Amino acid sequence: MERILISETPGQIGQIVKLQGWVNIRRDHGKLVFVDLRDRSGMIQMVIIPDKEEAYKAAKEIRGEYIIEVEGLVKARPGGAKNEKVPTGGVEIEVEKLSVLSKPEVELPVDISAEDLNVNLDTLLDNRTITLRNDKIKSIFRIYAELLRSYGEIMRKESFTEIKTPKILSSATEGGANFFKIKYFQQDAYLAQSPQFYKQAGVGIFERVFEIGSVFRAEPHFTTRHVNEYIGLDAEMGFIKGFEDVMDELEKVMTHVMGEIAENCQADLEKYEAQVLPVEKIPRMKLTEALDILDKEYGKKMEEVDIDAEGERLICEWVKKNHNSDFVFLTHYPTSIRPFYTMPSADPQYTDSFDLLFMGVEIASGGQRIHDYDQLVVNMKKNKLNPEDFKDYLDIFKYGIPPHGGWGLGSERIIQKMLGLGSIKETILFPRDVKRLTP
Amino acid sequence: MERILISETPGQIGQIVKLQGWVNIRRDHGKLVFVDLRDRSGMIQMVIIPDKEEAYKAAKEIRGEYIIEVEGLVKARPGGAKNEKVPTGGVEIEVEKLSVLSKPEVELPVDISAEDLNVNLDTLLDNRTITLRNDKIKSIFRIYAELLRSYGEIMRKESFTEIKTPKILSSATEGGANFFKIKYFQQDAYLAQSPQFYKQAGVGIFERVFEIGSVFRAEPHFTTRHVNEYIGLDAEMGFIKGFEDVMDELEKVMTHVMGEIAENCQADLEKYEAQVLPVEKIPRMKLTEALDILDKEYGKKMEEVDIDAEGERLICEWVKKNHNSDFVFLTHYPTSIRPFYTMPSADPQYTDSFDLLFMGVEIASGGQRIHDYDQLVVNMKKNKLNPEDFKDYLDIFKYGIPPHGGWGLGSERIIQKMLGLGSIKETILFPRDVKRLTP
Repeated sequence: MERILISETPGQIGQIVKLQGWVNIRRDHGKLVFVDLRDRSGMIQMVIIPDKEEAYKAAKEIRGEYIIEVEGLVKARPGGAKNEKVPTGGVEIEVEKLSVLSKPEVELPVDISAEDLNVNLDTLLDNRTITLRNDKIKSIFRIYAELLRSYGEIMRKESFTEIKTPKILSSATEGGANFFKIKYFQQDAYLAQSPQFYKQAGVGIFERVFEIGSVFRAEPHFTTRHVNEYIGLDAEMGFIKGFEDVMDELEKVMTHVMGEIAENCQADLEKYEAQVLPVEKIPRMKLTEALDILDKEYGKKMEEVDIDAEGERLICEWVKKNHNSDFVFLTHYPTSIRPFYTMPSADPQYTDSFDLLFMGVEIASGGQRIHDYDQLVVNMKKNKLNPEDFKDYLDIFKYGIPPHGGWGLGSERIIQKMLGLGSIKETILFPRDVKRLTP
Repeated sequence: MERILISETPGQIGQIVKLQGWVNIRRDHGKLVFVDLRDRSGMIQMVIIPDKEEAYKAAKEIRGEYIIEVEGLVKARPGGAKNEKVPTGGVEIEVEKLSVLSKPEVELPVDISAEDLNVNLDTLLDNRTITLRNDKIKSIFRIYAELLRSYGEIMRKESFTEIKTPKILSSATEGGANFFKIKYFQQDAYLAQSPQFYKQAGVGIFERVFEIGSVFRAEPHFTTRHVNEYIGLDAEMGFIKGFEDVMDELEKVMTHVMGEIAENCQADLEKYEAQVLPVEKIPRMKLTEALDILDKEYGKKMEEVDIDAEGERLICEWVKKNHNSDFVFLTHYPTSIRPFYTMPSADPQYTDSFDLLFMGVEIASGGQRIHDYDQLVVNMKKNKLNPEDFKDYLDIFKYGIPPHGGWGLGSERIIQKMLGLGSIKETILFPRDVKRLTP
């Protein structure tokens, strides 16, 4: 007999089927033994009666996380016994045969059958291979997978070409955050902290490119929003009329991915009581306007033209209240706090750049880039960078490149805020921070 | 006026349109100037006549790789003047206005308007940001993008969950190839040479997982088949009856991706005169059988039970001739040349493992893994590995895991062989080898 999935059982009432999966929980009611079986498609209640002697004996021995194979009869559950909370709540399995395929060698450090694990972050991450088996925690990663899928889908629909760019670089010259250093045969090398230069080269090739790839940041942060290795959702597009085109495109992307997640991950979202609002027009305001609002509405003054984590949280709160949007674009960041390749605005104190904030945090950064070779060289010098260190990058502009811009979007923060998770580390299977390199 | 794409012009005969793109080539016929314009959607011929004085003057100045914007009338080309080779060959643009958006600052080091670049590998790679703009070379990466897309598509359809696993590891214990060492804050760390352990953990969570991610190998190879950074297409699946299930699944994957590439990349494949055969049943033979064939048919004897690059090439030749298949699974590799986690066969000299060869090279490696904790510990010791170094990995098995297996598939070699490219480096936008870390 071929194994079927738990999700297929409601269509098999009256049939004998074979199932395989994990014992989520066993409840011994004296005469009857109940087992909740879990596989990749869902969960189902099984009942083992004393008449089936061998199966009954085996069922008495099994515990949580035993991996078993069963054969049994699919039966409709009577009205009152239905469990409306799961798609298979209308059926149960009356077990005929039961065998153990694999079992825990040790006492589990965490009871993962609980609806909520209720453990602190260190316990959660120290025992990652087992805590990830909890059904509510798995939901995080099902939603994450849907984010990856839907991002690729909308980018292709918008005629962006998917590229993969190198993560090992010969020099740490991009400016900005810190680089991890590698021993590369006889040379020193560095881990890429963004695909920025390569995706700009990509504009010269395909006009529109996107990349889903690893990003490495050697920043010694200890916050709920930072990790040292993450997955960036990058894009870059040519022939733009201005950086508004880039925001228009990113708005389309967020509309699509939020819509797909809302539609395809309902059950997973419900576990976190997460509301995914449809995205339409994302409000846009200048950073200076945002700072005015913070000052007037919240009595918060910044010393410079910049916004901190608290400011981002408050401005999102204000936008939510006044525009009913979970997203807001802040635009025109000062030249002094943007990378050298950022296009200056008409007023050169500011840049044609933006951050996209979502539910209190920055999730994306982008803008128009300088595409003129001479202007770029001048700007490098202004930033005390030596153009000779950037020969390969400057080649892109020597050969001519259209007006262009793009964004870097952090995949994990979207999921963190959407589900209201305390730490970004909860959205990563095996997160890496300053102290944590295992499991 | 809004810009339209070149691919949209055949539907706009009689209309004035705006186009933007690169000058692929300019041909000055004295009175008339012809320009082939290239954008992300294709190429089109434009004609500039002296009557349009300003456009004509501008057209006299432009050269290859100038980035321009034009407005002009879409005209049907008379029968004899049609170019059947391109989808826009039935129309041309009579230019009204022409302006330069950006232009090369220097003489281009390579003439990229040629159908075939005809440069050696070093020239090709040293001038990568410009050689990648050649239309035939772009085809490689359009096909590559389709491989990435279709791989994700079939994996999801087969209910594999997409995961992203860390590329920074605390120890270099997996055995096998060499690791790059990183300075990670106060610790030493290593770059992942495969997601093996993490995808096995993934089986404990989702049963079936896949990953598209960076792989780093510190192997000092100087061949046409090796690079030090590449994109791995990995998968791992639980509840298998044996390693044949894994081959069955990989066969489905290759059937799908080859079918999608054949269907969606016809024009790109034609440039390389590449024949993508439909994949049905992939022949499977034991490694020892393959060695017998090499001995009997080609007079090639191996000293040990193993196959080298020439052997892989010859056995593919033999399979092509006798089974009309570009693919072949070689199975049951000896225990001595497979990693410690490989499931032994009934005859424990051999393993339930396979390599998948395609047009002369190994593109994938896989098999069933040991899922029993005690058996794994014994096997580690046999391989002179210390189980204490593998605590986190062994936890996966301590908590119980179903019979499982999977594969690691190299994305670049598929494209290399499909298109008959001399080096794998031609399939990577910015390849990394022992000597090359730029651009």
